[in-house]
Amino acid sequence: MPHIPQRDATRPCWRALVLTLFPEMFPGPLGISLAGQARDAGIWSLDTIQIRDFGLGKHRQVDDTPAGGGAGMVLRADVLGPALDHARTQSPDAPLIYLSPRGTPLTQSLARDLAEGPGVTLLAGRFEGVDERVISAKGLKEISIGDYVLAGGELAAMVLIEACVRLLPGVVGAAESLANESFETGLLEHPQYTKPRTWIGRSIPDVLLSGDHKKVEAWRRKEAERLTADRRPDLLRPHGRPEK
Amino acid sequence: MPHIPQRDATRPCWRALVLTLFPEMFPGPLGISLAGQARDAGIWSLDTIQIRDFGLGKHRQVDDTPAGGGAGMVLRADVLGPALDHARTQSPDAPLIYLSPRGTPLTQSLARDLAEGPGVTLLAGRFEGVDERVISAKGLKEISIGDYVLAGGELAAMVLIEACVRLLPGVVGAAESLANESFETGLLEHPQYTKPRTWIGRSIPDVLLSGDHKKVEAWRRKEAERLTADRRPDLLRPHGRPEK
Repeated sequence: MPHIPQRDATRPCWRALVLTLFPEMFPGPLGISLAGQARDAGIWSLDTIQIRDFGLGKHRQVDDTPAGGGAGMVLRADVLGPALDHARTQSPDAPLIYLSPRGTPLTQSLARDLAEGPGVTLLAGRFEGVDERVISAKGLKEISIGDYVLAGGELAAMVLIEACVRLLPGVVGAAESLANESFETGLLEHPQYTKPRTWIGRSIPDVLLSGDHKKVEAWRRKEAERLTADRRPDLLRPHGRPEK
Repeated sequence: MPHIPQRDATRPCWRALVLTLFPEMFPGPLGISLAGQARDAGIWSLDTIQIRDFGLGKHRQVDDTPAGGGAGMVLRADVLGPALDHARTQSPDAPLIYLSPRGTPLTQSLARDLAEGPGVTLLAGRFEGVDERVISAKGLKEISIGDYVLAGGELAAMVLIEACVRLLPGVVGAAESLANESFETGLLEHPQYTKPRTWIGRSIPDVLLSGDHKKVEAWRRKEAERLTADRRPDLLRPHGRPEK
């Protein structure tokens, strides 16, 4: 039977608040399956703030051309500043995070740190980015979900939220299910097999059918080490890249 | 005026096909804003295949317990195999990709390679992963969007698709808008500023208002180098981590 997320009533609800020009993107995928069930159970909450509500003038302008020239538009500090002040009144204790490819890489340990806190307030940019002054004035922590560029911060916000939400108590059933997975041991996860025993001439490795738990564990550990050395040797050199 | 994505009729439509247990998550955020406009313009297309349609028996079972024991469930090879064969008939030339934290890290250059191809066929897993035999038998390329674990591959699929779609010809307006951004130069992007000239006592750096394009370019380059050295020294050592 699949585990149904259940709230521990002694714990406060983990709060995600997203500042965006596209609030209609939310909850989107986060309203479905594991994250959606956990939200329905009250384990976490999701709210959005429409940045355009803080826009200037009749047209609610939110952006302008980059100082010094260049393509694209930059989100204005005098729009984002008040929007972030408003977010602060709604979620006073959550860290303020700006999703940006220039940020600290999101890792499993950073997700765990954020999941252990009260929640997150996330600024999702669009266009060429945001005025640098709002980042420094409001103490925004910049986080990147990977070394690629998206059309905006909304999908990055969803990724960060999902990575945190599944770590909240009560969301994933068995604790082992989290303990053995990629990164939690510092290694990529070992290969998995299930029925049938043979499929188009390919068999499950004998050791996994031996019933000898010690041998199974040793095989899995060895496979995880082999995969990691082969695919991601950088993970075996802990100082090869900044952890968070 | 914002650029409206326009299709170059001489180019074929870039095709994204996603195998998932949650097709209702799509297009979701990809139906809105830049990616949504580009899809409406026929620059790319999105289709889903419900994995459960290939499930076994009356209950359309798709998963089973891991061989060798352990928590969670593993997606069966004899379900995913036929589902992938069906995908192959729909999108014969697209690479088959399994989104997994064990995969090759998605980078901007990998996104560019995929955007230059005919499209992508993406397998989004759930639970503990997929039977290893289907990965080798079907030649699935494993790609990871970052060093963290999600509840499933759906958000990762959306991230990969968005990173590719914005690189398709006609999607983003000015070519410079792509050329100067993070990773395209091997560096993180320089800080951006826009009006007003002074905001809560903070001013735009004088050089950006000088009108001297050479000086502006030199300042931006220096700032990009400084930021990269400070935040992501690993990007300056090209062999510090595998590129793709």
